[in-house]
Amino acid sequence: MRIPPTIASANDLRLDGTVRVSFAHRVRFVRGAMRSVDGRPSPLAAAIAEATADDGGFRGRLLPVLDSNLARAQPALEPSIADALRAGGAAMPEVLPALVVPGGERAKNDPAVLEAILDALDRGRVCRRSILLAAGGGAVLDVAGFASATFHRGVRLVRLPTTTLAQDDAAMGVKNGVNRGGKKNLLGAFAVPSAVLCDLELLRTLPDREFLAGFSEAVKIAVIRDAALLDRIERDAAAIRARDEAAAEWVIRRCAELHLRHILEGGDPFETGTARPLDFGHWSAHRLESMTGHRVLHGEAVAVGIALDATIAALESRLDRASARRIILALRALGLPTWLDALREVTDLLAGLEEFREHLGGAASLAMPTRIGASTDAPPPSAELVRRAIDELARS
Amino acid sequence: MRIPPTIASANDLRLDGTVRVSFAHRVRFVRGAMRSVDGRPSPLAAAIAEATADDGGFRGRLLPVLDSNLARAQPALEPSIADALRAGGAAMPEVLPALVVPGGERAKNDPAVLEAILDALDRGRVCRRSILLAAGGGAVLDVAGFASATFHRGVRLVRLPTTTLAQDDAAMGVKNGVNRGGKKNLLGAFAVPSAVLCDLELLRTLPDREFLAGFSEAVKIAVIRDAALLDRIERDAAAIRARDEAAAEWVIRRCAELHLRHILEGGDPFETGTARPLDFGHWSAHRLESMTGHRVLHGEAVAVGIALDATIAALESRLDRASARRIILALRALGLPTWLDALREVTDLLAGLEEFREHLGGAASLAMPTRIGASTDAPPPSAELVRRAIDELARS
Repeated sequence: MRIPPTIASANDLRLDGTVRVSFAHRVRFVRGAMRSVDGRPSPLAAAIAEATADDGGFRGRLLPVLDSNLARAQPALEPSIADALRAGGAAMPEVLPALVVPGGERAKNDPAVLEAILDALDRGRVCRRSILLAAGGGAVLDVAGFASATFHRGVRLVRLPTTTLAQDDAAMGVKNGVNRGGKKNLLGAFAVPSAVLCDLELLRTLPDREFLAGFSEAVKIAVIRDAALLDRIERDAAAIRARDEAAAEWVIRRCAELHLRHILEGGDPFETGTARPLDFGHWSAHRLESMTGHRVLHGEAVAVGIALDATIAALESRLDRASARRIILALRALGLPTWLDALREVTDLLAGLEEFREHLGGAASLAMPTRIGASTDAPPPSAELVRRAIDELARS
Repeated sequence: MRIPPTIASANDLRLDGTVRVSFAHRVRFVRGAMRSVDGRPSPLAAAIAEATADDGGFRGRLLPVLDSNLARAQPALEPSIADALRAGGAAMPEVLPALVVPGGERAKNDPAVLEAILDALDRGRVCRRSILLAAGGGAVLDVAGFASATFHRGVRLVRLPTTTLAQDDAAMGVKNGVNRGGKKNLLGAFAVPSAVLCDLELLRTLPDREFLAGFSEAVKIAVIRDAALLDRIERDAAAIRARDEAAAEWVIRRCAELHLRHILEGGDPFETGTARPLDFGHWSAHRLESMTGHRVLHGEAVAVGIALDATIAALESRLDRASARRIILALRALGLPTWLDALREVTDLLAGLEEFREHLGGAASLAMPTRIGASTDAPPPSAELVRRAIDELARS
C-alpha cells in the first residue's frame, strides 16, 4: 500500500493497495461418507472437524439442505447425517432439522426455494461459523451455495454432491448461482466451500439417464485437456453404461481432478478475466436447456453442445475431422445425445452466444479444441458457420 | 495441490488445495470527481480507465445508481457523470439512464430497492465487465454493492461516497449488505470495488447532522488506533462543526486511510476469523438503530455506542477513567450524541450482543480500548456491567 508520509489537504490523494485472500479447498472422494469404520470418525465428521479446526472449541450448528430427488430415493440419508455427527464427538455442530428442496433446475428457477433456505438459516440462528450441508445435484448445490455465500456474508458450506455431474464437475467449482427472469445464473457469487465429499455410493439410486448425463463433462475435459482420459472413456463406455462402479469411479475422479486443478492452478479462480477455458460446448448447452424448458438435463445439453462445437471446430479447420467424429462417437457410446430438434431454431440458439458474452463480460471468446487434449481461445463462430455445423450434425 | 500419481479406485482420495485471489483496491480523495482540469481527464474518467485497462478495447456500459437525497440536493450530478464519461474518450463505457433509489436505511430494509437495481442491470444488459456506479451514502453503497456483487456473479463497482461516514469509513470497506426481516446486514457479500472516489465537494450539500455523524467513525478509529488523530479531532472539533473544509478533510482522509490500512494489512479482509478489531462501539450501535426505527443515524448510534463501550472499558479497568471521559467529551465537541433513551431498555439492547455474535460467528469478542490509540480483543461484558455503564453514562 502506497500511503504518502503526510496527507496533504487540497491535493489529490491516492490510497492504492491489493486485497489478498486465500481459502482452503478440501475435496474428498470416499465410499460411505457417513459411515464410521473401525471406530474412526466417518469421512463427513472428519471433514467437518478439519473445516472447523480453528474455532477454538466453539460449537456451531449445521443445517442439512436435501435435494427432494435424493431424499425420496435415499430416506436413510437424513438420519445417517445426524448419526454421523453424533458419533463425531462433542465438537461436532448441533444438527438442525433438514430442509428438503425441489431437485433439478426448479431449485434455481423458483425464488421461493432460495427464500426457504434463507428462512431456515434464520430460523436456525445459523452463525457465520456454522455450516450449511448441501446434499444433492448441481442445481441444489448452486442455490444452497448462493444462500450460504450471502447469509451473514457467508456461512460455511459443505457439499455432498449426489449426481455424477455434481461429483465430477459442479461440486469442484467455487461458484454458485440462481436463475432470474429465466436467465441462467444471473445471480450468484464466487465462494469456496469448506469441504466437498463425493461418495460414489450416493450415485447408486440415480436413474440411468441422470447417471450417464454427468459423463459429458468428462468427455469435455478429456477433449480439451487429457487425451488419455478420452482413450479410457472409449474403452470403458460400455462398462459405464452397465453401471460398473469401478469404471465409473475412475472417470469421475479423473474428471473432477482436472476441473479442480484448473481452478487451483489456472490463475483465475474467480473468473475476472474473459477466458473461460473449461466452457467448451457450454454456450449452446445453456441455451438449449432454456429452449427445451429444462426437459433436457444439463449434462445432456452439454453433450449436444460438445457435438456442435466439435463440428464447428472441424469446419473451421481447428480440429481434424477424424477427431471431431471420435468425440461424437464417444458421447454416443456413453448413451448421450448428440442432437436435439431445438438446434433447428438457429436464431433462438444464437442468442445463447450473446447471453454467454454478457455473462462473461467483455469480448466473447470460446474454448475450442485444436486436437484431442488441447484447446485454444477462439472468437465466436459466425451465424453462418453455426448453421452449417447444425446441418452437418443433423446428417451425422 | 497434492494429487496422488495415480487415482486408486476404492481408496479414499484427498484433493486438497488453496484458492488464492487478489484484487486491486483503488481509493482516491479528490475535489471535483467529474471535473476535467487543463484538458486532463476527470478523476472519474481516469479511475474508470484504470479499472478497465485490461479489457482490450472492449467498451462496456455504466449504470449510475443515485441516492435520492443526493439527487435532490445536487441535480447537476447526473448530467455531470455523463459529461465526464463523454469527455473521457471512446474507451469510456456507454452511460445508461440513472436509477434513483431511496437514501438512508430504507435502501437496505426494502427488498424492492435491491430488486429495482437488479432490474436496471438486467434491462441495461450490463455484463460482468461493465460498471455499476453507486453514488450516495453508506446504505445506498451497501445495497448497490450487493447487487453488483451478485449480478452475473459480480459486475464492477465504482463507489462515489457522498456522506462523511461513507467517505471516511463505509466506502473503504470490501463488503456490502442488505437487511432481511429487520436484521441488519443479514444478507451480503465480500467484494472489492474497482474504484472509490471520495470528493469533498459532494459533502457541501449535506445537512449538519449528516455531515457531523460521520466523525464518530473518526473518533472510533482514533481511540483504538491513533492517539494523534484524537488530539487533532479535539483541536479541530469547533472548526469541523463550523464546516471548515480543510479541517474536516484532514480528519476524513486520515480516518479513511486507517480503515483502508486495516483492510489491506490486517490479514483478514474477508473476516474469516472471529476478531473484528475495528468494531469498537458497534454492537450496541446496530441495535440502537433498529430499536429507534432508524430515526437515529448510523454515525450517531456509533457515537452512543462508543460512549457506552468507553464507559464499560473504564468499569472493567481496561481503560483509565480520564481517557474514557476524554472520548465522551470529544464526541460531544463534535456535536455528536452520547446518550439515547433507548439505552434504558437494557434487555432489548443486550439482544444486540447476541446478534453481533451470530453475525460474526463463533464465540463473541469485542474490540475494547486499553489506552487512547490501542485496543484489545475482549470477551463481551456481562449484563450487570452493561447496566452499570448505562447508569453511569446517564449521569455523566
